[in-house]
Amino acid sequence: MQDIFKYIEEHNDEAIGELIQLCRLPSVSAKGEAIGETAEWVSGRLRALGFEVRVIEKSAAKGEVSSSGAQPVVYAESLSQSFQEGHHSPAAEGQGREKGTPSSAPTLLFYNHYDVQPAEPLELWTSPPFEPMMRDGNLYGRGVCDDKGNLVARLAALRAWREVRGEFPCSLKFCIEGDEEIGSPQMEEFVEANRELLAADACVWEGSGVTWDGRPMIPLGVKGLLYVELGCETISHDAHSSYGTILPNAAWRLTWALSTIKGLDERVLIEGFYDDVREPTAEERAAIEAMPDEEWETRKAYGIKEAVAGLRGLDFRLRHYLAPTATIDGLTSGYQGDGAKTVLPARALAKMDFRLVPDQDPHDIMTKLRKHLDSHGFGDITLREFGAEHPAGTPIGAPFVGVMREAVRDGFGAEPLIVPTMAGTGPLYPFIETLGLPVADCGVGYPDARIHAPDENIRIEDFLRATKAVAALLGRFWGA
Amino acid sequence: MQDIFKYIEEHNDEAIGELIQLCRLPSVSAKGEAIGETAEWVSGRLRALGFEVRVIEKSAAKGEVSSSGAQPVVYAESLSQSFQEGHHSPAAEGQGREKGTPSSAPTLLFYNHYDVQPAEPLELWTSPPFEPMMRDGNLYGRGVCDDKGNLVARLAALRAWREVRGEFPCSLKFCIEGDEEIGSPQMEEFVEANRELLAADACVWEGSGVTWDGRPMIPLGVKGLLYVELGCETISHDAHSSYGTILPNAAWRLTWALSTIKGLDERVLIEGFYDDVREPTAEERAAIEAMPDEEWETRKAYGIKEAVAGLRGLDFRLRHYLAPTATIDGLTSGYQGDGAKTVLPARALAKMDFRLVPDQDPHDIMTKLRKHLDSHGFGDITLREFGAEHPAGTPIGAPFVGVMREAVRDGFGAEPLIVPTMAGTGPLYPFIETLGLPVADCGVGYPDARIHAPDENIRIEDFLRATKAVAALLGRFWGA
Repeated sequence: MQDIFKYIEEHNDEAIGELIQLCRLPSVSAKGEAIGETAEWVSGRLRALGFEVRVIEKSAAKGEVSSSGAQPVVYAESLSQSFQEGHHSPAAEGQGREKGTPSSAPTLLFYNHYDVQPAEPLELWTSPPFEPMMRDGNLYGRGVCDDKGNLVARLAALRAWREVRGEFPCSLKFCIEGDEEIGSPQMEEFVEANRELLAADACVWEGSGVTWDGRPMIPLGVKGLLYVELGCETISHDAHSSYGTILPNAAWRLTWALSTIKGLDERVLIEGFYDDVREPTAEERAAIEAMPDEEWETRKAYGIKEAVAGLRGLDFRLRHYLAPTATIDGLTSGYQGDGAKTVLPARALAKMDFRLVPDQDPHDIMTKLRKHLDSHGFGDITLREFGAEHPAGTPIGAPFVGVMREAVRDGFGAEPLIVPTMAGTGPLYPFIETLGLPVADCGVGYPDARIHAPDENIRIEDFLRATKAVAALLGRFWGA
Repeated sequence: MQDIFKYIEEHNDEAIGELIQLCRLPSVSAKGEAIGETAEWVSGRLRALGFEVRVIEKSAAKGEVSSSGAQPVVYAESLSQSFQEGHHSPAAEGQGREKGTPSSAPTLLFYNHYDVQPAEPLELWTSPPFEPMMRDGNLYGRGVCDDKGNLVARLAALRAWREVRGEFPCSLKFCIEGDEEIGSPQMEEFVEANRELLAADACVWEGSGVTWDGRPMIPLGVKGLLYVELGCETISHDAHSSYGTILPNAAWRLTWALSTIKGLDERVLIEGFYDDVREPTAEERAAIEAMPDEEWETRKAYGIKEAVAGLRGLDFRLRHYLAPTATIDGLTSGYQGDGAKTVLPARALAKMDFRLVPDQDPHDIMTKLRKHLDSHGFGDITLREFGAEHPAGTPIGAPFVGVMREAVRDGFGAEPLIVPTMAGTGPLYPFIETLGLPVADCGVGYPDARIHAPDENIRIEDFLRATKAVAALLGRFWGA
């Protein structure tokens, strides 16, 4: 791999130049901005690497979902010419495709997204978010890490293979979303509708990073999510608060309803909420144990003396990575301005999300939440679903995880940490369940990358190492 | 009185003309608009009636309150020349001043306010709010009822006395506030600082009205009020909601804290909240019983099948007029926009008001609320006070109430209803407790007057009757 690594080092500035170009396109999916232009830029880069590219609209099979304004997916494939029938690919063994399927080479699928979060609040950026700038070895700009930096590092790794060896060592596919930052609408339907196109032997997820002490992380899973809005309307219009004697108050009813959902001890009180939570395996526990203790840094970052329920050390990590949540994301009712207004609110809304762990099912939790409210006398509280994603993960023992571990060690020169699951959520489920793929991840980030926040940035060294890791992965995946 | 009533009838159009002039001045205290101009207009009318007028700034004795931007009070007095020592005034008997005090005639004090509520939402007005217009026997415009219509009716009654009899039958004073609609800041201090100036034998409050079936109401009291903002801040800045596992959530803590304050059965759970609530007297209960049943109209107006706790008929009225409340006026936390944002809120706020009944004390309730939160583990919830008013009322048996009842019967030609207390609040306490006055009320309103709302209006017939009632009150107060 040293020839390829050398090429990557010598051409890293060019790769950064490409990243700057891409980050100048303000592809904010929440605003629908620069989407077509960015999809075109990405398609052009992939075509230059020899890929066949198609920009595919997500299906509007479920009519009511199409109104969410889903953005098109950039799909690209390069089916390897070098594949020899019967060649042994250790990575593909025992995975979602039968060994030695004669029709194609072992195929690696990359999942990325070309959209970014909004840049607001703009005044907190040191330099303009869509004019990427280098400062002290770091590149600043919206999307330099999440997810354009990861995408461009992967393209740089492919270019190195192509320039140095003349071809890729395996078949490659890309599935690059345009609306991951607004929750990947219709992704499950898209994958279902394009099973053949997306067929592969393994999948690399959107990107990861290193810990503060420089250890690259390989996440294998995500939590699921149920996002709901709880609504309450008690009277036809707001009343003077002197009617507090006799008129039902929407803010009170919502408060009472919410207080039945989670107790002060942080335990979720919805009947059956924990029924399908499976115990972590010994391997998962061991992996969490091996992860660095982030308690102090987290408490410092948020200015608190202790975590909820006084969690510390390993308990803190186990809870963070392996426990489901019930979070109030927002409350709104009545008068919210300065000072006093004596009003009895007719309407009240709460946003809530539930982070779910294997084997909880968001649709099942929705049903249980409805039943819970009804049985507690809150049949009048309406529920509106704004997102449902299943938890998903690849077992630590999967062969592809071993391949990724070695590739990341090659690229970063440090022993990787296996992260059985992230605390966050992503559209991983259809790739694992529908396509049957093992999924693992590596990437350009670091703890202060400030994704989704002002001054998003990457360290150029991390970008270089992540590029090498992807190049190494191609080689190892092929069995070289 | 027929001579005076005849003058009032013949000059009613002129009085309405004056009201239209006054309502053209957009004296919105919440915006500090047209305040000086309106105070000047009111002063001019009173001077034309022979009053000595002073525009007095409210004292800024309590430094921190002066920042509320209190508006000046128009104070006016006309001390009667016709008083003969030893003349028997039935109204003044046994009230706040010793009978036969030689230095002045029996004095009637009028409380009114020259400011109005904001007119917004403007698009819901049939005609512009500050261009008063007659339609079908009603006058429409902001302030035509609350409170400019009441003030102008009173001035019209005085003019009738002066034109027909050459003088007023008793001493008269006016205390006309410029910021009642923003909660009468500093009124207790103002009354305390001006006890001598405001000394009187009885007080007429800002204005009342008739029921749907035409019976004029004479309110004698108001509830007290404690307005507080409950605040919670758990972390230094909002977090990604995946941290719901380990970071304390301000919206949850506020929800839990609020849910300890009032139960689903509508009972306030603050320890000692009901300790000082005195039982209504037999007279008060009888007065509430005599009031019309408003349950059906109220339910219809707010589109509900039943009141809280299924209250009906007399129970509905007793609760509405005589029970204290705990109302959530507003909730705000985290994400409140459309759709989903996965955020764990660092801050949450609730606005609350407590309507208090005799002999509850707002400062005592504030202390009890703080203790309640502390003892339930919510020492981190902050409390900010935005208003504290004592409940206050005049006993039904006070002689002045009898005088008012007769005067209102004269003016309206219908038997009045005594309302022991309003469900709402006003700065009545210092007039009753500091000045020692009996206070009763009558006025130009009716159930569809839409005060504080678009299309505020009065019926010209009600205005005429209220003018007569005030004229009759002057005569009866004097003992004529």
